[in-house]
Amino acid sequence: MYLHHFYETSLAQASYMVACQATGEAAVIDPARNIEGYLKTAREQGFQIVAAVETHIHADFVSGVTELARRTGATIYHSIEGVDNGGYEWSSDLPVKGLRDQDTIQLGKVQLRAVHTPGHTPEHMAYELIDGAVADRPMGIFTGDFVFVGDVGRPDLLEKAVGVVGSAEEGARQMFSSIHRFKKYADYVQIWPGHGSGSACGKALGAVPTSTVGYERLFNPAFQPTEETAFINLLLDGQPEPPAYFAKMKEVNKTGMTPLQKVPSPVEMQLTGDEIAELAQDNQTMVIDTRRIQTFATGSIPGTINLPYPDMFTEWLGRLADYEKTIYLIAEPHQFAPLRKIMLGMGMDNLKGFFATSVIDSASKKLTYDTQSPSVVDKKREHDDVQVLDVRYIDEWDEAHIPNAKHIPLPKLAERADELNPKKPVAVHCRSGKRSAIASSMLINQGFDVINVEGGFINWEQQNLETTKDKIKEG
Amino acid sequence: MYLHHFYETSLAQASYMVACQATGEAAVIDPARNIEGYLKTAREQGFQIVAAVETHIHADFVSGVTELARRTGATIYHSIEGVDNGGYEWSSDLPVKGLRDQDTIQLGKVQLRAVHTPGHTPEHMAYELIDGAVADRPMGIFTGDFVFVGDVGRPDLLEKAVGVVGSAEEGARQMFSSIHRFKKYADYVQIWPGHGSGSACGKALGAVPTSTVGYERLFNPAFQPTEETAFINLLLDGQPEPPAYFAKMKEVNKTGMTPLQKVPSPVEMQLTGDEIAELAQDNQTMVIDTRRIQTFATGSIPGTINLPYPDMFTEWLGRLADYEKTIYLIAEPHQFAPLRKIMLGMGMDNLKGFFATSVIDSASKKLTYDTQSPSVVDKKREHDDVQVLDVRYIDEWDEAHIPNAKHIPLPKLAERADELNPKKPVAVHCRSGKRSAIASSMLINQGFDVINVEGGFINWEQQNLETTKDKIKEG
Amino acid sequence: MYLHHFYETSLAQASYMVACQATGEAAVIDPARNIEGYLKTAREQGFQIVAAVETHIHADFVSGVTELARRTGATIYHSIEGVDNGGYEWSSDLPVKGLRDQDTIQLGKVQLRAVHTPGHTPEHMAYELIDGAVADRPMGIFTGDFVFVGDVGRPDLLEKAVGVVGSAEEGARQMFSSIHRFKKYADYVQIWPGHGSGSACGKALGAVPTSTVGYERLFNPAFQPTEETAFINLLLDGQPEPPAYFAKMKEVNKTGMTPLQKVPSPVEMQLTGDEIAELAQDNQTMVIDTRRIQTFATGSIPGTINLPYPDMFTEWLGRLADYEKTIYLIAEPHQFAPLRKIMLGMGMDNLKGFFATSVIDSASKKLTYDTQSPSVVDKKREHDDVQVLDVRYIDEWDEAHIPNAKHIPLPKLAERADELNPKKPVAVHCRSGKRSAIASSMLINQGFDVINVEGGFINWEQQNLETTKDKIKEG
Amino acid sequence: MYLHHFYETSLAQASYMVACQATGEAAVIDPARNIEGYLKTAREQGFQIVAAVETHIHADFVSGVTELARRTGATIYHSIEGVDNGGYEWSSDLPVKGLRDQDTIQLGKVQLRAVHTPGHTPEHMAYELIDGAVADRPMGIFTGDFVFVGDVGRPDLLEKAVGVVGSAEEGARQMFSSIHRFKKYADYVQIWPGHGSGSACGKALGAVPTSTVGYERLFNPAFQPTEETAFINLLLDGQPEPPAYFAKMKEVNKTGMTPLQKVPSPVEMQLTGDEIAELAQDNQTMVIDTRRIQTFATGSIPGTINLPYPDMFTEWLGRLADYEKTIYLIAEPHQFAPLRKIMLGMGMDNLKGFFATSVIDSASKKLTYDTQSPSVVDKKREHDDVQVLDVRYIDEWDEAHIPNAKHIPLPKLAERADELNPKKPVAVHCRSGKRSAIASSMLINQGFDVINVEGGFINWEQQNLETTKDKIKEG
Repeated sequence: MYLHHFYETSLAQASYMVACQATGEAAVIDPARNIEGYLKTAREQGFQIVAAVETHIHADFVSGVTELARRTGATIYHSIEGVDNGGYEWSSDLPVKGLRDQDTIQLGKVQLRAVHTPGHTPEHMAYELIDGAVADRPMGIFTGDFVFVGDVGRPDLLEKAVGVVGSAEEGARQMFSSIHRFKKYADYVQIWPGHGSGSACGKALGAVPTSTVGYERLFNPAFQPTEETAFINLLLDGQPEPPAYFAKMKEVNKTGMTPLQKVPSPVEMQLTGDEIAELAQDNQTMVIDTRRIQTFATGSIPGTINLPYPDMFTEWLGRLADYEKTIYLIAEPHQFAPLRKIMLGMGMDNLKGFFATSVIDSASKKLTYDTQSPSVVDKKREHDDVQVLDVRYIDEWDEAHIPNAKHIPLPKLAERADELNPKKPVAVHCRSGKRSAIASSMLINQGFDVINVEGGFINWEQQNLETTKDKIKEG
Repeated sequence: MYLHHFYETSLAQASYMVACQATGEAAVIDPARNIEGYLKTAREQGFQIVAAVETHIHADFVSGVTELARRTGATIYHSIEGVDNGGYEWSSDLPVKGLRDQDTIQLGKVQLRAVHTPGHTPEHMAYELIDGAVADRPMGIFTGDFVFVGDVGRPDLLEKAVGVVGSAEEGARQMFSSIHRFKKYADYVQIWPGHGSGSACGKALGAVPTSTVGYERLFNPAFQPTEETAFINLLLDGQPEPPAYFAKMKEVNKTGMTPLQKVPSPVEMQLTGDEIAELAQDNQTMVIDTRRIQTFATGSIPGTINLPYPDMFTEWLGRLADYEKTIYLIAEPHQFAPLRKIMLGMGMDNLKGFFATSVIDSASKKLTYDTQSPSVVDKKREHDDVQVLDVRYIDEWDEAHIPNAKHIPLPKLAERADELNPKKPVAVHCRSGKRSAIASSMLINQGFDVINVEGGFINWEQQNLETTKDKIKEG
Repeated sequence: MYLHHFYETSLAQASYMVACQATGEAAVIDPARNIEGYLKTAREQGFQIVAAVETHIHADFVSGVTELARRTGATIYHSIEGVDNGGYEWSSDLPVKGLRDQDTIQLGKVQLRAVHTPGHTPEHMAYELIDGAVADRPMGIFTGDFVFVGDVGRPDLLEKAVGVVGSAEEGARQMFSSIHRFKKYADYVQIWPGHGSGSACGKALGAVPTSTVGYERLFNPAFQPTEETAFINLLLDGQPEPPAYFAKMKEVNKTGMTPLQKVPSPVEMQLTGDEIAELAQDNQTMVIDTRRIQTFATGSIPGTINLPYPDMFTEWLGRLADYEKTIYLIAEPHQFAPLRKIMLGMGMDNLKGFFATSVIDSASKKLTYDTQSPSVVDKKREHDDVQVLDVRYIDEWDEAHIPNAKHIPLPKLAERADELNPKKPVAVHCRSGKRSAIASSMLINQGFDVINVEGGFINWEQQNLETTKDKIKEG
Repeated sequence: MYLHHFYETSLAQASYMVACQATGEAAVIDPARNIEGYLKTAREQGFQIVAAVETHIHADFVSGVTELARRTGATIYHSIEGVDNGGYEWSSDLPVKGLRDQDTIQLGKVQLRAVHTPGHTPEHMAYELIDGAVADRPMGIFTGDFVFVGDVGRPDLLEKAVGVVGSAEEGARQMFSSIHRFKKYADYVQIWPGHGSGSACGKALGAVPTSTVGYERLFNPAFQPTEETAFINLLLDGQPEPPAYFAKMKEVNKTGMTPLQKVPSPVEMQLTGDEIAELAQDNQTMVIDTRRIQTFATGSIPGTINLPYPDMFTEWLGRLADYEKTIYLIAEPHQFAPLRKIMLGMGMDNLKGFFATSVIDSASKKLTYDTQSPSVVDKKREHDDVQVLDVRYIDEWDEAHIPNAKHIPLPKLAERADELNPKKPVAVHCRSGKRSAIASSMLINQGFDVINVEGGFINWEQQNLETTKDKIKEG
């Protein structure tokens, strides 16, 4: 038996190739849209990929099962358990096979056995892997977004990202019983999950790639509650806000996305600063500047938004980007390729072009903003010279905030910026100074005089204990 | 003044960037479709490309003027001399400017002056380059396909490739008078031509990138005749057969081709040998195997054609490929990118996918053919065990050939293979054994038992002086 | 806790990075000599590598612990259990720390605990990994060359590769008791081994990267014997011949090898075919041609040896290459980098240069050899026109062989070729035709007329059942 | 005949390959140390490089003639005219051939003819190129550092860089007569020079790669004087200061430098900020930070010097780096390779390692400096709060300067910084703000409180016309 792990860091997404070396038949579980790695490995090993296996309808990346099917002739295996026969709506020219609980996929002597494990989604399948050459019991389970290392899949995405009312609690209930069923596996059985740390598909995903049933039984918090209500409360509490692009992913993964062969290739463009500014201010276009926060602050083209790569790019593109607009990126030329790869993985085929960062040096008109320490901002507040804007999430705000600050979470800022006073400088802060940099880039483009608060709320609290005291009084 | 040469080896095509360093304005003369190099140089030098300059409607590569215009905002400058106002039919959204003889393009202190130089084509323009900062006379001339190093542009393409009857002689006449006019330039003026050695746009192009008016006056054969008829005879004699794709180039370069952003990206595919054979035998599809001749001969997938890369690929693709069919290439993965680049440069946007050469190792059914020396073939002929096929051009055949051989030039073989006897082995030869390898790959796919004659006609002549004697008798 | 797997396919070698995300302290277990991957990951994750951890003195690759120590300041942790305080002899300028059984390495909240597990080598350590943030028991064990997936480390290398008489049986005995001790771990504990399939450090290594104590307890053959003698017999039986380079690895890994900074860089060279032949025939030099078997057979430079890349290169370089000679490779230019990487990993710093394969096309003198089917060879034998040489290992020969064939195992061929009759063609065979290709390249260079037997012994047996019958009579 | 231009942008250095296609013999004129490009072209064209031709002992880059000779077997051709038989001192194992005026090198039908052209150096040779297949007169001349496009080679390097007293005027005199001799060539003869714009080997080199005798005769200022003294004055006036590394180049190019095979490879290292600071402050070590000026100013590791890549790196490394010290670079990982290439080209084999720029983010101690406008600095001067330091060259200072400023040219700053008052902030300026950034990085490391004057002297003059008036009074 052959087993190989693939991991796409930018999306924290794991996929797996299993094969029988005797027959050369291979399957890929949860392939990503970019299938080059699977093809390369198959080529080197002399395998033929015959199966593209889905655990569930992914919400956080474009599935590669249709790409694999079209380019290798592999059959797509997917769940038809759960509501709506699993919910998939494949194009009729694709070779697909629906699976029910306990159905198997045979690759020579190697066997995959489907196990219906609803909770994260109603149709979710895990797959036992059995090496028939040496064993009659599973060596491990591909758990998809059911069990992670140290966590389980969140059941609230359908409700929060797609708007299926009531599905969060229903999912949590299903998850409780799926976990119950899962515990029957022997301790030694390995767990090969669909995500690692950094994914928004769970709240406490470990940065360890694999685990075992026995270890999770002992240390996974989600395995501890024995009572359903306690479990549901634990599971639904504190789940991070899902990014806006999840809804789109759910939609495209039901049918499979445009084949990569048909996706237009973004190209480098060379326009003047003024021409880029015009594009950036067009309603149908987004121009995203991927430079570091500090560099952007010292001069940027009007209309552009700052999503620094690599640290904030993927997450905030997922939260802020619009599939209906044409997107251009300002980036270092050697980063054009990885940036495109990320966007394709998120289904952002609307990336049309790149501008080299050097274009900014020769732009005639540039915007800048200041970064100041909380104490400077505090002083300005005393003289009523500034308004404070907090762009953190609601739960962070609820926990503690600067008195008399205005609260608009970053994902809402574009549509709600008119709530700010245009005549006064805006001091923007978040927790540590990163999200506020994105906010700053958006606000200077709307004509505000912006101050990015250095170090954010963390820094503010340290510098000014009054803040905390105020909070206590308010409480 | 700034001047930089670009050279695309696979197409033997030269282009040039000139700029005024004081203002940063740059022009590209005869840009190729792939404009990455121009953008990179402009980026490094801090230039803005404002002019995309055409010498004429190119027949041998896709012009990059529209790509440049769309991606940098540059104006397209083109000839409106000659018949039909030059013959261009630009899309209305492009910024274009038609030029007449002596019109100028100003880049800061640098000037380009158009000089109507019909012959190769009726609208052809050369461009004098004047460095206004230090001189009032041209430093050199961008001669396009008018004057090359050691040759001049061929005037017969319109007639041979596009079918404009009588245009060859008319062009030769115009060329005579353009050269006459050209001789007025001072000896020291540099010549920066549109092609180097290997191009099919002239018959004796040197492998030296540049020359001067004085040197060509002395040593360029085309500059020697003082009498028009002698010149015309010299010029029209012995021009190589233009590749089939020239007609397509002429057509797309009148309007500009599909922006690269909209060209589908070919991708690697992984099918079984049988599936590839099926594709290769489909009427709407070509599968081209780019491996070396020797390797192909030892085993190939039925239906595939052998165009070895790099040595024969570009030329024979231009002669044999079909713009209406979908094309797949079998190649080493590290060659996917350069192969695609070549095909885009020839307007072959119908390249849909690649197969790694390793697929052939695991194909269940493979075709092979033998390579034998002329003496072995001769022996077989004595026993009537073989038919001999000569796939050279008609002028090579006319000069000398094997008695009783069948003659079908390689570009016609696909449609005329039924003239051969399917029941007898075919010994194929060309001059040196390269074209016959392509022919062999085509014939084994039609079910023939094929022998590739080692070393071709050259070898045959050496081994068998009888051949020459026979020829003499025939004569 | 952070855990990342690294895998070097060409050497089938696994290494691991663990880190505490809270403090940023990271350790690498069994680093390979090329440490770029560890540095890159640490850079991306914001880690500082503070520990370079050895499980044992490796025999099959150059350890990277000294490279890590010199370039990151990390401390080297190594075993001082077993004979000779572990046997290491570190240079005094290196920061090292010897470990005894149960000693620990602390990385923030993450702990590694050394477990003395002799058998493969006397000093061998495994390391438990404990994620102190969530658990008080190990999540898994880095088992080095102690326990693999489906196998255990071979105890005979010291005896076979380094010549320590009696150490094989002693090691097997220790292994028995180490396994006994190991079985105490809970079923769920993960096993992260030092090698995957393809390594010569065990005989039946699985192509699955990780396992668990419980699964191995059930299905690992080495875990089944309860009686020491039975275990020892099982373990020592059928171990593959260790490659010659293992002895060198043992030597260099005691002290650490030359820092990569001081290793001369091999460069491309361009000599004529004759000059290369001269180099290749020099006693102090090896010129290895990495082209495919089929291509090499059609023409090669005298004196060169054929080790086709990738399929046979690494293994046979390890068996045939000489650390005392200067080595040159003939290869495709895009393979220079991966080839060098492999050789550095095997400590072959004596790689001095590369020749591009294209040099062979223009070489004036080339050697060739034939490939013929067993039946053709059989026919020649009838007329006494050929001698048959079998280059398989002794155990393959013992199992069955062609009657009256000569047996010289490939690794001995260079020194024993004079046992062959120089006046008669040599038909060389191995099992499948791959090793005999290497042998063929060596023999043509000694002036023999060579026939490579197509498909080897497998093919011969199928075509000629007489062979088997003969064997039975002999038996 | 085949002719190909090579151009190494970072060193503004041109080299050429010429070959006879009939025999495949090729020569490289003035090869750079990195010979990969020549090998690649020869490989693609099927050439054998048989001649490595030197025009003179280069002062600005490491010649590749010995590298070529060692790796291809080519003969080194060099001048033995001028003092000391040309001055070369080749190692005895190299195949060399000394040339006198009018000696020839034959490559099949192609001929190079040496022409002694002293002036830039006493031994300087130019080489006529004659395409014997079609002509009996030269097509062009490889002029080395004798004639450039729009300039001639400077004769003062031996005196200024190596200290040969009186050689500048002697060289100028020789140059006058070499030019006189050169003018005899026909107008049409092409000029292929050894340098393009950006080289410090001439003062007004054009950014056009080639010219002709006739064009230079008309427009090259150095061709205009008819009287020797006028010519000498013109030539010696205003030559830029030669970089310090020229002396080293002169030395190594007499014998040939270390073969690249023996140069240690620099590697990436990962140390903490403190450890890097320690290295940087060591007397035997230089740590150069290649980030942009603006980024460096916001935080850098103590002891490091800022030489921003690409814009200032090569030039200022040549002026400031020390061949006796070990050098480390802080750079983006994708720039490690080009940076090393540049340093090898300058003979800086003492580059030992790289640090990724990301290391700075996690350094615990960082230095910063301010950038302020001239008006702010002026205000501080009024209150005696600042001292002004001018780091421009002496001739710039002489032309105009800020009253009461201190003048230390940048190349002398390291040794003369103790002339500044350590208790007062230093406002550093140059012409435009670039050199002062380097100076700032050096001064903050010596404990000064530094202000980099924004826009430099240009900006200052514009903002404060008083400055100019002062200057007039002084004059």
